[in-house]
Amino acid sequence: MATKTLASWAVNLETIPESTHKAAVRSLYNYIGCAIGGSNHPTVAKAHHALGPLFGRPTSTLLGTPDRCDLQHAALLNGIASHVHDYDDTHLATIIHPAGPVASAILSYAEYQGSVTGDELILALVAGIEASCKLGLAVWPEHYDIGWHITSTTGSIGAAVGVGKLMKLTETQMAHAIGIAAVQVTGLREMFGSDTKSFHPGRAASNGIVAALLARQDYTSSDQALEAKRGWANVVAGGGTPKLEELLETLGKTWEIETNSFKPFPCGIVCHPAIDAAIRCHTELTQTHELDLREIKNVSLRVHPLVVELTSKKEPRDGLEAKFSVFHGCAVGLLYGKAGPAEYADEVVASDAVISVRDKVSIEADPSLAADEACLSLSHFSGMKLEKHVAHAVGSLQVPMTDEQLTAKFVDQVSLVVGEYAAEKWSGIAWNICNARDVSESISDQE
Amino acid sequence: MATKTLASWAVNLETIPESTHKAAVRSLYNYIGCAIGGSNHPTVAKAHHALGPLFGRPTSTLLGTPDRCDLQHAALLNGIASHVHDYDDTHLATIIHPAGPVASAILSYAEYQGSVTGDELILALVAGIEASCKLGLAVWPEHYDIGWHITSTTGSIGAAVGVGKLMKLTETQMAHAIGIAAVQVTGLREMFGSDTKSFHPGRAASNGIVAALLARQDYTSSDQALEAKRGWANVVAGGGTPKLEELLETLGKTWEIETNSFKPFPCGIVCHPAIDAAIRCHTELTQTHELDLREIKNVSLRVHPLVVELTSKKEPRDGLEAKFSVFHGCAVGLLYGKAGPAEYADEVVASDAVISVRDKVSIEADPSLAADEACLSLSHFSGMKLEKHVAHAVGSLQVPMTDEQLTAKFVDQVSLVVGEYAAEKWSGIAWNICNARDVSESISDQE
Repeated sequence: MATKTLASWAVNLETIPESTHKAAVRSLYNYIGCAIGGSNHPTVAKAHHALGPLFGRPTSTLLGTPDRCDLQHAALLNGIASHVHDYDDTHLATIIHPAGPVASAILSYAEYQGSVTGDELILALVAGIEASCKLGLAVWPEHYDIGWHITSTTGSIGAAVGVGKLMKLTETQMAHAIGIAAVQVTGLREMFGSDTKSFHPGRAASNGIVAALLARQDYTSSDQALEAKRGWANVVAGGGTPKLEELLETLGKTWEIETNSFKPFPCGIVCHPAIDAAIRCHTELTQTHELDLREIKNVSLRVHPLVVELTSKKEPRDGLEAKFSVFHGCAVGLLYGKAGPAEYADEVVASDAVISVRDKVSIEADPSLAADEACLSLSHFSGMKLEKHVAHAVGSLQVPMTDEQLTAKFVDQVSLVVGEYAAEKWSGIAWNICNARDVSESISDQE
Repeated sequence: MATKTLASWAVNLETIPESTHKAAVRSLYNYIGCAIGGSNHPTVAKAHHALGPLFGRPTSTLLGTPDRCDLQHAALLNGIASHVHDYDDTHLATIIHPAGPVASAILSYAEYQGSVTGDELILALVAGIEASCKLGLAVWPEHYDIGWHITSTTGSIGAAVGVGKLMKLTETQMAHAIGIAAVQVTGLREMFGSDTKSFHPGRAASNGIVAALLARQDYTSSDQALEAKRGWANVVAGGGTPKLEELLETLGKTWEIETNSFKPFPCGIVCHPAIDAAIRCHTELTQTHELDLREIKNVSLRVHPLVVELTSKKEPRDGLEAKFSVFHGCAVGLLYGKAGPAEYADEVVASDAVISVRDKVSIEADPSLAADEACLSLSHFSGMKLEKHVAHAVGSLQVPMTDEQLTAKFVDQVSLVVGEYAAEKWSGIAWNICNARDVSESISDQE
């Protein structure tokens, strides 16, 4: 029943709670910021250049650029861009980054189709993200453990559901769309560290578009694509026992999108508590005590053991390596009071100012700390000593980013690509796209 | 090493044995016949119509039609067409249908690129098919048992290798192409019986094109995409232990394409020995004895138990059901001396003449028989009794189809789509494409 259950729920979804709507608006907003923020990354440029021979009628915008291409490739390239800085959203229970595949697909499709309202877009986003995350929960953790990149393996199906929702597919067609998406199982964790990691959510978005287009034409798949003995869940569960029926019964009762979180810093999430602590120190040192940050004597961090295991790169050479260095994150947090994409630029990573602070930082694994917790002790040559205990890092479920913080993140990363003026304008569009009479007009407003 | 081993072998492949060349020419010939033969199938029409919004510059031919579309979608649609009648080739050790994904990809790409010679095309076909089949052997049988459609899961990688060979990728680029193809794991057996089954080899072809295009632009993946702990083989092996290194060591030593077989009849392979026996009876009854076939009294078949299990449909209602009816296959073999696509047309299946013979056929499972073996006993109202023992059905490895039989199969199925005159012309082109100075000219000759 799982496939029909999901199809039926998605087709008939008409109203969502206010809190779900709010969560969807924030997820979409954060997605647009990340997609523009990543749009000038070399990984995106290579894919754009490589796939040019395949481009069709230019109906859909490559976010952050004046360019358009066909809906399939717009979805693919926007999906790559949204993930390339590792700065996107996270459904913490499955570590799925759900907006990338779904939003890339539905935005590209909405522009192609025209006359999609903001309400319809939000409903499609919710349908797609709920599909991805419920399926993710059903095969978690074995599916991820065996090596699948769960963002894209579930994202193909989520994207198909989202686009299918915009197309107003029948329940039968939606079930077929789910099935056609389910056979395109995309994404291996082995690719982390290469361009192909970001290809995953992009390809998931285009997989979903292809699936929904075929299903609309009554291209058939199986009515039990998800739950059959040789269907999606059993095949990809990595030896686990998928909890499909159980999870899909919660559709519309618990809303996964409400637990979607947003990264405040473009680096591994385990670094975030330490960076959060460093930024709090920066504020106190500069605003309360007006001390010279260059005269920091030393900094000791106590962190969850995973931080030491994953982000101990003491002397990162460039921005990419700095993502795996809690020392760098902590240094820029202390020095600049922020740790956005600009603070991960290669020249910042290699600057004397940053290196001199970085070298004063030491870390210690403390198994008694939670993953979103950190303790920082700082001494200053003035004699000042500071202690900061972060119980839950900003961006965690307990301390979600505020709308203001999301806006600052958006403008910060988008400014680096299109300049501050356009970034502010895009920010307004992205917050208000949920109210659009025609989504495609909102997006092309910007050109 | 497996990924690098395969990449290096494919990039450096320059000469192949004469027997391998011959096998490749036959595989390509059979592929073209099947792709044209399937081109007017409703499944292809639906996909064509559905994906029209995505089409790009029309560089590549939809075989069997005057239409072209972009190389990605030509590969996808030709791949669907080649598989839709279940009439394509079979690498018996893995039941991979290897030409569909690889030939669809390289032909579409060759037309797009231009100036690809027949020699280059054959080398690319061999490289791609060897890649698919060696990888298939490495994960067989657990991979298939758990539910993957092995034709397309290995076909994405084979297609990438074939296209990458035509592009003259470097070894590093080829390894990346293999990796990008490896993350697009397409095809579930649950889809058998639906349109999506044929989507699998088509999508595999387009996956391979996308992978090779990206890799040519130095889009990176992993150098251990196939063999890493969380790489392709371990993830898709369904709990088995992939034999990657062992199998890839045999590249260039044993040639899988030489064991590629071709279906003489467009139905499940288990029926073939019985149909073969029926056709031999037809020949003897009509040519030696000049007896009236309508006066057959009864027919008893002894067959491998799988025939009874899979193809016992006593009263098939249409062509699709007839594919799962050894009774129908045997009846048309007896009556017409052939069992091609025309003999599986809905009106033939429902005809009184066929039904009256079909009703006289009985079957019995005999576990002592091999899968490619059958015994047929026939009595005729004239008093004549015939016994036919087929030790190895036509199309088996022991009794491969002759070139003449392949030609008859080709012309037979292609005539139904484009008429006999064009079918003969296409047959000539397909046998000679291996000698072409420019493959794209050979194909467009036909228009």
